[in-house]
Amino acid sequence: MFFSASFAVSAVKKRIQNMPERHFDQELEELKANLLRMVGLVEQSIGEAVRALVERDEALAGEVIREDARIDEMEVVVEEACLRLLALRQPIAVDLRFITSAMKINNDLERMADQAVNIAERALELNKEPLLKPLIDIPRMSELAQSMVKESLDAFIHRDAALARSVRERDDEMDHLRDQVFRELLTYMMQDPKTINRAVHLILVARHLERIADLATNVAEDVVYFVQGKVIRHGLEE
Amino acid sequence: MFFSASFAVSAVKKRIQNMPERHFDQELEELKANLLRMVGLVEQSIGEAVRALVERDEALAGEVIREDARIDEMEVVVEEACLRLLALRQPIAVDLRFITSAMKINNDLERMADQAVNIAERALELNKEPLLKPLIDIPRMSELAQSMVKESLDAFIHRDAALARSVRERDDEMDHLRDQVFRELLTYMMQDPKTINRAVHLILVARHLERIADLATNVAEDVVYFVQGKVIRHGLEE
Repeated sequence: MFFSASFAVSAVKKRIQNMPERHFDQELEELKANLLRMVGLVEQSIGEAVRALVERDEALAGEVIREDARIDEMEVVVEEACLRLLALRQPIAVDLRFITSAMKINNDLERMADQAVNIAERALELNKEPLLKPLIDIPRMSELAQSMVKESLDAFIHRDAALARSVRERDDEMDHLRDQVFRELLTYMMQDPKTINRAVHLILVARHLERIADLATNVAEDVVYFVQGKVIRHGLEE
Repeated sequence: MFFSASFAVSAVKKRIQNMPERHFDQELEELKANLLRMVGLVEQSIGEAVRALVERDEALAGEVIREDARIDEMEVVVEEACLRLLALRQPIAVDLRFITSAMKINNDLERMADQAVNIAERALELNKEPLLKPLIDIPRMSELAQSMVKESLDAFIHRDAALARSVRERDDEMDHLRDQVFRELLTYMMQDPKTINRAVHLILVARHLERIADLATNVAEDVVYFVQGKVIRHGLEE
Protein backbone atom coordinates (compact mmCIF):
# COMPACT_ATOMS: atom_id res chain seq x y z
CA MET A 1 0.00 0.00 0.00
CA PHE A 2 2.73 2.40 0.97
CA PHE A 3 4.65 1.55 -2.19
CA SER A 4 1.80 2.06 -4.51
CA ALA A 5 1.01 5.41 -2.88
CA SER A 6 4.60 6.53 -3.21
CA PHE A 7 4.55 5.29 -6.79
CA ALA A 8 1.50 7.47 -7.43
CA VAL A 9 3.27 10.48 -5.93
CA SER A 10 6.29 9.99 -8.13
CA ALA A 11 4.03 9.50 -11.14
CA VAL A 12 2.32 12.81 -10.40
CA LYS A 13 5.69 14.53 -9.93
CA LYS A 14 7.01 13.02 -13.12
CA ARG A 15 3.95 14.26 -14.96
CA ILE A 16 4.56 17.77 -13.69
CA GLN A 17 8.26 17.60 -14.51
CA ASN A 18 7.41 16.56 -18.02
CA MET A 19 5.59 19.81 -18.56
CA PRO A 20 8.23 22.51 -18.07
CA GLU A 21 6.46 25.84 -18.53
CA ARG A 22 9.43 27.48 -20.14
CA HIS A 23 9.59 24.94 -22.99
CA PHE A 24 5.90 25.19 -23.67
CA ASP A 25 6.21 28.97 -23.90
CA GLN A 26 9.10 28.55 -26.32
CA GLU A 27 7.02 26.25 -28.48
CA LEU A 28 4.19 28.79 -28.51
CA GLU A 29 6.65 31.52 -29.51
CA GLU A 30 7.90 29.32 -32.33
CA LEU A 31 4.34 28.74 -33.48
CA LYS A 32 3.74 32.50 -33.54
CA ALA A 33 6.98 33.06 -35.45
CA ASN A 34 5.93 30.49 -38.04
CA LEU A 35 2.52 32.09 -38.49
CA LEU A 36 4.17 35.49 -38.91
CA ARG A 37 6.54 34.06 -41.51
CA MET A 38 3.58 32.54 -43.29
CA VAL A 39 1.52 35.71 -43.30
CA GLY A 40 4.56 37.52 -44.75
CA LEU A 41 4.68 35.06 -47.63
CA VAL A 42 0.93 35.30 -48.19
CA GLU A 43 0.99 39.11 -48.27
CA GLN A 44 3.86 38.99 -50.71
CA SER A 45 2.02 36.53 -52.96
CA ILE A 46 -1.08 38.71 -53.10
CA GLY A 47 0.97 41.83 -53.85
CA GLU A 48 3.03 40.13 -56.53
CA ALA A 49 0.04 38.45 -58.17
CA VAL A 50 -1.68 41.82 -58.59
CA ARG A 51 1.54 43.48 -59.71
CA ALA A 52 1.97 40.70 -62.32
CA LEU A 53 -1.55 41.52 -63.50
CA VAL A 54 -1.13 45.30 -63.58
CA GLU A 55 2.35 45.28 -65.15
CA ARG A 56 1.62 42.30 -67.41
CA ASP A 57 4.64 40.54 -65.96
CA GLU A 58 4.45 36.83 -66.84
CA ALA A 59 7.66 35.89 -65.03
CA LEU A 60 6.32 37.34 -61.81
CA ALA A 61 3.00 35.51 -62.23
CA GLY A 62 4.96 32.27 -62.68
CA GLU A 63 6.90 32.97 -59.52
CA VAL A 64 3.74 33.43 -57.47
CA ILE A 65 2.48 30.07 -58.75
CA ARG A 66 5.75 28.30 -57.91
CA GLU A 67 6.16 29.94 -54.49
CA ASP A 68 2.79 28.56 -53.41
CA ALA A 69 4.43 25.18 -52.75
CA ARG A 70 6.42 26.77 -49.90
CA ILE A 71 3.27 28.12 -48.28
CA ASP A 72 1.62 24.71 -48.65
CA GLU A 73 4.58 23.09 -46.89
CA MET A 74 4.48 25.65 -44.08
CA GLU A 75 0.78 24.97 -43.54
CA VAL A 76 1.50 21.28 -42.98
CA VAL A 77 4.40 22.09 -40.62
CA VAL A 78 2.29 24.50 -38.55
CA GLU A 79 -0.64 22.12 -38.37
CA GLU A 80 1.56 19.28 -37.17
CA ALA A 81 3.18 21.57 -34.59
CA CYS A 82 -0.30 22.45 -33.28
CA LEU A 83 -1.34 18.80 -33.07
CA ARG A 84 1.89 17.98 -31.27
CA LEU A 85 1.31 20.78 -28.77
CA LEU A 86 -2.24 19.61 -28.17
CA ALA A 87 -1.21 15.98 -27.71
CA LEU A 88 1.93 16.41 -25.63
CA ARG A 89 1.10 19.52 -23.61
CA GLN A 90 -2.62 19.03 -23.21
CA PRO A 91 -3.08 22.76 -22.79
CA ILE A 92 -6.16 24.20 -21.17
CA ALA A 93 -8.07 27.49 -21.18
CA VAL A 94 -6.36 30.31 -23.06
CA ASP A 95 -3.52 28.17 -24.42
CA LEU A 96 -5.96 25.63 -25.79
CA ARG A 97 -7.95 28.37 -27.51
CA PHE A 98 -4.74 29.90 -28.83
CA ILE A 99 -3.64 26.64 -30.45
CA THR A 100 -7.01 25.72 -31.94
CA SER A 101 -7.35 29.28 -33.27
CA ALA A 102 -3.85 28.99 -34.75
CA MET A 103 -4.94 25.84 -36.58
CA LYS A 104 -7.89 27.61 -38.17
CA ILE A 105 -5.88 30.71 -39.02
CA ASN A 106 -3.12 28.58 -40.54
CA ASN A 107 -5.71 26.96 -42.77
CA ASP A 108 -7.15 30.33 -43.76
CA LEU A 109 -3.71 31.73 -44.63
CA GLU A 110 -3.09 28.84 -46.98
CA ARG A 111 -6.45 29.44 -48.66
CA MET A 112 -5.55 33.09 -49.16
CA ALA A 113 -2.38 32.00 -50.93
CA ASP A 114 -4.49 29.80 -53.21
CA GLN A 115 -6.48 32.89 -54.20
CA ALA A 116 -3.24 34.70 -55.03
CA VAL A 117 -2.37 31.77 -57.32
CA ASN A 118 -5.78 32.14 -58.99
CA ILE A 119 -5.01 35.81 -59.64
CA ALA A 120 -1.60 34.96 -61.09
CA GLU A 121 -3.21 32.40 -63.40
CA ARG A 122 -5.70 35.00 -64.61
CA ALA A 123 -2.83 37.43 -65.18
CA LEU A 124 -1.32 34.86 -67.56
CA GLU A 125 -4.67 34.45 -69.34
CA LEU A 126 -5.18 38.19 -69.65
CA ASN A 127 -1.73 38.64 -71.11
CA LYS A 128 -2.85 36.76 -74.21
CA GLU A 129 -5.04 39.72 -75.18
CA PRO A 130 -4.39 43.48 -75.33
CA LEU A 131 -4.82 45.54 -72.17
CA LEU A 132 -8.52 46.21 -71.55
CA LYS A 133 -7.99 49.29 -69.40
CA PRO A 134 -5.50 50.63 -66.86
CA LEU A 135 -6.35 49.00 -63.56
CA ILE A 136 -7.12 51.32 -60.68
CA ASP A 137 -9.68 49.76 -58.36
CA ILE A 138 -8.13 46.30 -58.42
CA PRO A 139 -4.76 47.47 -57.01
CA ARG A 140 -6.75 49.40 -54.42
CA MET A 141 -8.65 46.21 -53.51
CA SER A 142 -5.35 44.40 -53.28
CA GLU A 143 -3.83 46.94 -50.88
CA LEU A 144 -6.91 46.79 -48.74
CA ALA A 145 -6.87 42.98 -48.73
CA GLN A 146 -3.18 42.86 -47.85
CA SER A 147 -3.61 45.25 -44.95
CA MET A 148 -6.58 43.23 -43.67
CA VAL A 149 -4.53 40.03 -43.84
CA LYS A 150 -1.57 41.57 -42.04
CA GLU A 151 -3.62 43.25 -39.34
CA SER A 152 -5.83 40.25 -38.66
CA LEU A 153 -2.69 38.28 -37.85
CA ASP A 154 -1.19 41.12 -35.80
CA ALA A 155 -4.44 41.19 -33.86
CA PHE A 156 -4.05 37.47 -33.17
CA ILE A 157 -0.41 37.66 -32.08
CA HIS A 158 -1.02 40.69 -29.83
CA ARG A 159 -4.47 39.54 -28.64
CA ASP A 160 -5.85 42.87 -29.84
CA ALA A 161 -9.63 42.59 -30.19
CA ALA A 162 -10.03 46.26 -31.19
CA LEU A 163 -7.68 45.79 -34.15
CA ALA A 164 -9.54 42.62 -35.12
CA ARG A 165 -12.83 44.52 -35.11
CA SER A 166 -11.37 47.26 -37.29
CA VAL A 167 -10.31 44.60 -39.84
CA ARG A 168 -13.84 43.29 -39.88
CA GLU A 169 -15.30 46.73 -40.52
CA ARG A 170 -13.13 47.23 -43.59
CA ASP A 171 -14.81 44.27 -45.26
CA ASP A 172 -17.67 46.59 -46.24
CA GLU A 173 -15.24 48.85 -48.09
CA MET A 174 -14.05 45.79 -49.95
CA ASP A 175 -17.59 44.87 -50.97
CA HIS A 176 -18.11 48.42 -52.17
CA LEU A 177 -14.97 48.30 -54.37
CA ARG A 178 -16.00 44.92 -55.75
CA ASP A 179 -19.41 46.29 -56.79
CA GLN A 180 -17.74 49.28 -58.41
CA VAL A 181 -15.39 47.03 -60.42
CA PHE A 182 -18.33 44.83 -61.38
CA ARG A 183 -20.47 47.71 -62.65
CA GLU A 184 -17.65 49.33 -64.59
CA LEU A 185 -16.71 46.08 -66.32
CA LEU A 186 -20.35 45.34 -67.15
CA THR A 187 -20.43 48.67 -68.99
CA TYR A 188 -17.33 47.73 -70.98
CA MET A 189 -18.88 44.42 -71.97
CA MET A 190 -22.19 45.98 -73.02
CA GLN A 191 -20.44 48.56 -75.18
CA ASP A 192 -18.04 46.19 -76.87
CA PRO A 193 -18.52 42.40 -76.87
CA LYS A 194 -14.84 41.94 -77.79
CA THR A 195 -13.99 42.93 -74.20
CA ILE A 196 -16.18 40.26 -72.61
CA ASN A 197 -13.57 37.58 -72.03
CA ARG A 198 -11.12 40.00 -70.44
CA ALA A 199 -13.81 41.74 -68.41
CA VAL A 200 -15.04 38.43 -66.96
CA HIS A 201 -11.48 37.51 -65.95
CA LEU A 202 -11.12 40.87 -64.21
CA ILE A 203 -14.45 40.43 -62.44
CA LEU A 204 -13.15 37.10 -61.16
CA VAL A 205 -9.89 38.73 -60.02
CA ALA A 206 -12.00 41.12 -57.94
CA ARG A 207 -13.79 38.06 -56.52
CA HIS A 208 -10.48 36.43 -55.57
CA LEU A 209 -9.46 39.60 -53.72
CA GLU A 210 -12.84 39.72 -52.03
CA ARG A 211 -12.36 36.08 -50.91
CA ILE A 212 -9.01 37.03 -49.39
CA ALA A 213 -10.69 39.84 -47.47
CA ASP A 214 -13.42 37.40 -46.36
CA LEU A 215 -10.79 34.99 -45.08
CA ALA A 216 -9.07 37.86 -43.22
CA THR A 217 -12.47 38.69 -41.74
CA ASN A 218 -12.82 35.06 -40.61
CA VAL A 219 -9.43 35.36 -38.93
CA ALA A 220 -10.46 38.63 -37.27
CA GLU A 221 -13.66 37.04 -35.97
CA ASP A 222 -11.70 34.12 -34.57
CA VAL A 223 -9.39 36.61 -32.85
CA VAL A 224 -12.29 38.36 -31.13
CA TYR A 225 -13.57 34.98 -29.98
CA PHE A 226 -10.11 34.00 -28.79
CA VAL A 227 -9.51 37.26 -26.90
CA GLN A 228 -12.97 38.02 -25.56
CA GLY A 229 -14.72 34.67 -25.70
CA LYS A 230 -17.45 36.33 -27.79
CA VAL A 231 -18.76 34.90 -31.03
CA ILE A 232 -19.12 37.76 -33.52
CA ARG A 233 -19.35 35.52 -36.56
CA HIS A 234 -22.71 35.30 -38.24
CA GLY A 235 -23.78 38.69 -36.88
CA LEU A 236 -24.52 36.98 -33.55
CA GLU A 237 -23.38 40.12 -31.78
CA GLU A 238 -25.83 42.51 -33.38
CA MET B 1 3.98 12.21 4.55
CA PHE B 2 1.52 9.35 4.63
CA PHE B 3 -1.34 11.77 4.32
CA SER B 4 0.07 13.61 1.39
CA ALA B 5 0.82 10.32 -0.39
CA SER B 6 -2.67 9.07 0.21
CA PHE B 7 -3.99 12.42 -0.96
CA ALA B 8 -2.03 11.98 -4.17
CA VAL B 9 -3.48 8.50 -4.65
CA SER B 10 -7.00 9.75 -4.21
CA ALA B 11 -6.28 12.66 -6.55
CA VAL B 12 -5.07 10.22 -9.18
CA LYS B 13 -8.11 7.99 -8.66
CA LYS B 14 -10.41 10.96 -8.82
CA ARG B 15 -8.78 12.06 -12.02
CA ILE B 16 -9.36 8.64 -13.51
CA GLN B 17 -12.92 8.52 -12.25
CA ASN B 18 -13.52 11.88 -13.86
CA MET B 19 -12.73 10.46 -17.25
CA PRO B 20 -15.23 7.64 -17.69
CA GLU B 21 -14.57 6.13 -21.11
CA ARG B 22 -18.22 5.51 -21.76
CA HIS B 23 -19.14 9.18 -21.37
CA PHE B 24 -16.35 10.30 -23.63
CA ASP B 25 -17.57 7.88 -26.29
CA GLN B 26 -21.08 9.24 -25.86
CA GLU B 27 -19.83 12.77 -26.35
CA LEU B 28 -18.00 11.72 -29.51
CA GLU B 29 -21.17 10.06 -30.79
CA GLU B 30 -23.10 13.24 -30.09
CA LEU B 31 -20.49 15.24 -31.99
CA LYS B 32 -20.84 12.91 -34.97
CA ALA B 33 -24.64 13.16 -34.81
CA ASN B 34 -24.40 16.96 -34.83
CA LEU B 35 -22.08 16.97 -37.82
CA LEU B 36 -24.45 14.63 -39.66
CA ARG B 37 -27.38 16.89 -38.86
CA MET B 38 -25.39 19.85 -40.10
CA VAL B 39 -24.35 18.18 -43.35
CA GLY B 40 -28.03 17.32 -43.93
CA LEU B 41 -28.96 20.98 -43.61
CA VAL B 42 -26.09 22.08 -45.86
CA GLU B 43 -27.03 19.58 -48.58
CA GLN B 44 -30.61 20.75 -48.38
CA SER B 45 -29.57 24.40 -48.67
CA ILE B 46 -27.49 23.74 -51.77
CA GLY B 47 -30.29 21.74 -53.39
CA GLU B 48 -32.94 24.31 -52.58
CA ALA B 49 -30.82 27.27 -53.67
CA VAL B 50 -30.30 25.71 -57.08
CA ARG B 51 -33.96 24.69 -57.31
CA ALA B 52 -34.93 28.28 -56.47
CA LEU B 53 -32.70 29.38 -59.35
CA VAL B 54 -33.94 26.83 -61.88
CA GLU B 55 -37.63 27.17 -61.00
CA ARG B 56 -37.43 30.93 -60.40
CA ASP B 57 -38.91 30.39 -56.95
CA GLU B 58 -38.33 33.52 -54.87
CA ALA B 59 -39.99 32.15 -51.74
CA LEU B 60 -37.64 29.17 -51.74
CA ALA B 61 -34.61 31.44 -52.23
CA GLY B 62 -35.75 33.50 -49.24
CA GLU B 63 -36.06 30.33 -47.17
CA VAL B 64 -32.47 29.29 -47.94
CA ILE B 65 -31.26 32.71 -46.83
CA ARG B 66 -33.24 32.58 -43.59
CA GLU B 67 -32.33 28.95 -42.80
CA ASP B 68 -28.64 29.86 -42.87
CA ALA B 69 -28.96 31.26 -39.34
CA ARG B 70 -29.65 27.75 -38.07
CA ILE B 71 -26.50 26.39 -39.68
CA ASP B 72 -24.51 29.30 -38.24
CA GLU B 73 -25.81 28.47 -34.78
CA MET B 74 -24.96 24.80 -35.18
CA GLU B 75 -21.43 25.69 -36.20
CA VAL B 76 -20.95 27.58 -32.95
CA VAL B 77 -22.45 24.72 -30.91
CA VAL B 78 -20.23 22.11 -32.57
CA GLU B 79 -17.11 24.24 -32.18
CA GLU B 80 -17.78 24.78 -28.51
CA ALA B 81 -18.43 21.07 -28.01
CA CYS B 82 -15.04 20.33 -29.63
CA LEU B 83 -13.23 22.86 -27.43
CA ARG B 84 -14.93 21.41 -24.35
CA LEU B 85 -13.87 17.88 -25.33
CA LEU B 86 -10.29 19.04 -25.89
CA ALA B 87 -10.14 20.92 -22.60
CA LEU B 88 -11.90 18.46 -20.32
CA ARG B 89 -10.95 15.15 -21.88
CA GLN B 90 -7.48 16.02 -23.10
CA PRO B 91 -7.73 13.30 -25.74
CA ILE B 92 -4.65 11.87 -27.41
CA ALA B 93 -3.78 10.10 -30.66
CA VAL B 94 -6.77 9.16 -32.81
CA ASP B 95 -9.36 10.94 -30.63
CA LEU B 96 -7.35 14.16 -30.71
CA ARG B 97 -7.12 13.97 -34.50
CA PHE B 98 -10.82 13.19 -34.73
CA ILE B 99 -11.79 16.26 -32.73
CA THR B 100 -9.42 18.68 -34.46
CA SER B 101 -10.58 17.33 -37.84
CA ALA B 102 -14.18 17.79 -36.73
CA MET B 103 -13.43 21.44 -35.95
CA LYS B 104 -12.08 22.04 -39.44
CA ILE B 105 -14.88 20.14 -41.13
CA ASN B 106 -17.47 22.01 -39.08
CA ASN B 107 -15.98 25.28 -40.33
CA ASP B 108 -15.99 24.05 -43.92
CA LEU B 109 -19.64 22.97 -43.71
CA GLU B 110 -20.63 26.43 -42.56
CA ARG B 111 -18.74 27.97 -45.48
CA MET B 112 -20.55 25.70 -47.89
CA ALA B 113 -23.85 26.96 -46.51
CA ASP B 114 -22.65 30.53 -47.13
CA GLN B 115 -22.13 29.61 -50.78
CA ALA B 116 -25.68 28.27 -50.94
CA VAL B 117 -26.86 31.66 -49.64
CA ASN B 118 -24.84 33.36 -52.39
CA ILE B 119 -26.62 31.20 -54.96
CA ALA B 120 -30.03 32.03 -53.45
CA GLU B 121 -29.19 35.74 -53.61
CA ARG B 122 -28.24 35.43 -57.27
CA ALA B 123 -31.50 33.58 -57.92
CA LEU B 124 -33.33 36.64 -56.58
CA GLU B 125 -31.25 38.94 -58.82
CA LEU B 126 -31.80 36.77 -61.89
CA ASN B 127 -35.53 36.74 -61.29
CA LYS B 128 -35.65 40.46 -62.08
CA GLU B 129 -34.94 39.66 -65.75
CA PRO B 130 -36.40 37.12 -68.20
CA LEU B 131 -34.97 33.59 -68.24
CA LEU B 132 -31.69 33.53 -70.18
CA LYS B 133 -31.79 29.85 -71.01
CA PRO B 134 -33.00 26.60 -69.46
CA LEU B 135 -30.33 25.53 -66.99
CA ILE B 136 -28.83 22.09 -67.52
CA ASP B 137 -25.19 22.05 -66.46
CA ILE B 138 -25.75 24.07 -63.28
CA PRO B 139 -28.19 21.53 -61.79
CA ARG B 140 -25.69 18.84 -62.77
CA MET B 141 -22.93 20.74 -60.94
CA SER B 142 -25.23 21.04 -57.96
CA GLU B 143 -25.94 17.30 -57.80
CA LEU B 144 -22.26 16.56 -58.05
CA ALA B 145 -21.44 19.09 -55.32
CA GLN B 146 -24.14 17.72 -53.02
CA SER B 147 -22.91 14.15 -53.43
CA MET B 148 -19.33 15.26 -52.76
CA VAL B 149 -20.43 17.05 -49.59
CA LYS B 150 -22.42 14.08 -48.34
CA GLU B 151 -19.77 11.50 -49.11
CA SER B 152 -16.90 13.50 -47.69
CA LEU B 153 -18.73 13.55 -44.37
CA ASP B 154 -19.66 9.86 -44.62
CA ALA B 155 -15.98 9.15 -45.22
CA PHE B 156 -15.16 11.06 -42.03
CA ILE B 157 -17.76 9.34 -39.88
CA HIS B 158 -16.85 5.85 -41.15
CA ARG B 159 -13.11 6.55 -41.36
CA ASP B 160 -13.24 5.49 -45.00
CA ALA B 161 -10.14 6.78 -46.80
CA ALA B 162 -11.11 5.13 -50.10
CA LEU B 163 -14.41 7.02 -50.17
CA ALA B 164 -12.57 10.25 -49.32
CA ARG B 165 -10.21 9.71 -52.23
CA SER B 166 -13.10 9.11 -54.62
CA VAL B 167 -14.63 12.45 -53.53
CA ARG B 168 -11.36 14.15 -54.31
CA GLU B 169 -11.20 12.64 -57.78
CA ARG B 170 -14.62 14.00 -58.68
CA ASP B 171 -13.32 17.54 -58.25
CA ASP B 172 -11.89 17.33 -61.79
CA GLU B 173 -15.35 16.59 -63.18
CA MET B 174 -16.56 19.71 -61.37
CA ASP B 175 -13.83 21.83 -62.95
CA HIS B 176 -14.77 20.44 -66.34
CA LEU B 177 -18.45 21.37 -65.89
CA ARG B 178 -17.48 24.85 -64.69
CA ASP B 179 -15.40 25.43 -67.84
CA GLN B 180 -18.27 24.21 -69.99
CA VAL B 181 -20.70 26.62 -68.31
CA PHE B 182 -18.18 29.42 -68.65
CA ARG B 183 -17.62 28.89 -72.38
CA GLU B 184 -21.31 28.55 -73.15
CA LEU B 185 -22.20 31.74 -71.30
CA LEU B 186 -19.35 33.64 -72.94
CA THR B 187 -20.91 32.75 -76.29
CA TYR B 188 -24.28 34.09 -75.16
CA MET B 189 -22.71 37.36 -74.08
CA MET B 190 -20.76 37.80 -77.30
CA GLN B 191 -23.85 37.23 -79.41
CA ASP B 192 -26.16 39.47 -77.42
CA PRO B 193 -24.90 42.09 -74.97
CA LYS B 194 -28.36 42.23 -73.36
CA THR B 195 -27.58 38.83 -71.81
CA ILE B 196 -24.35 39.98 -70.15
CA ASN B 197 -25.69 40.76 -66.70
CA ARG B 198 -27.55 37.47 -66.43
CA ALA B 199 -24.68 35.47 -67.91
CA VAL B 200 -22.21 36.93 -65.40
CA HIS B 201 -24.54 36.03 -62.53
CA LEU B 202 -24.77 32.47 -63.84
CA ILE B 203 -20.98 32.24 -64.20
CA LEU B 204 -20.74 33.26 -60.56
CA VAL B 205 -23.32 30.63 -59.57
CA ALA B 206 -21.07 28.04 -61.21
CA ARG B 207 -18.19 29.47 -59.15
CA HIS B 208 -20.17 29.13 -55.93
CA LEU B 209 -20.87 25.49 -56.73
CA GLU B 210 -17.22 24.94 -57.57
CA ARG B 211 -16.27 26.46 -54.18
CA ILE B 212 -18.60 24.01 -52.46
CA ALA B 213 -16.89 21.14 -54.27
CA ASP B 214 -13.49 22.60 -53.27
CA LEU B 215 -14.57 22.70 -49.65
CA ALA B 216 -15.79 19.08 -49.90
CA THR B 217 -12.37 18.23 -51.35
CA ASN B 218 -10.71 19.92 -48.36
CA VAL B 219 -12.86 17.77 -46.08
CA ALA B 220 -11.93 14.63 -48.05
CA GLU B 221 -8.23 15.48 -47.77
CA ASP B 222 -8.57 16.01 -44.03
CA VAL B 223 -10.27 12.61 -43.79
CA VAL B 224 -7.37 10.86 -45.54
CA TYR B 225 -4.98 12.59 -43.15
CA PHE B 226 -7.12 11.63 -40.20
CA VAL B 227 -7.46 7.97 -41.24
CA GLN B 228 -4.07 7.28 -42.74
CA GLY B 229 -1.90 10.02 -41.27
CA LYS B 230 -0.95 11.01 -44.83
CA VAL B 231 -1.05 14.55 -46.14
CA ILE B 232 -2.58 14.49 -49.62
CA ARG B 233 -3.32 18.20 -49.75
CA HIS B 234 -1.21 20.30 -52.06
CA GLY B 235 -0.39 17.30 -54.27
CA LEU B 236 2.18 16.25 -51.65
CA GLU B 237 1.36 12.65 -52.41
CA GLU B 238 2.15 12.70 -56.10
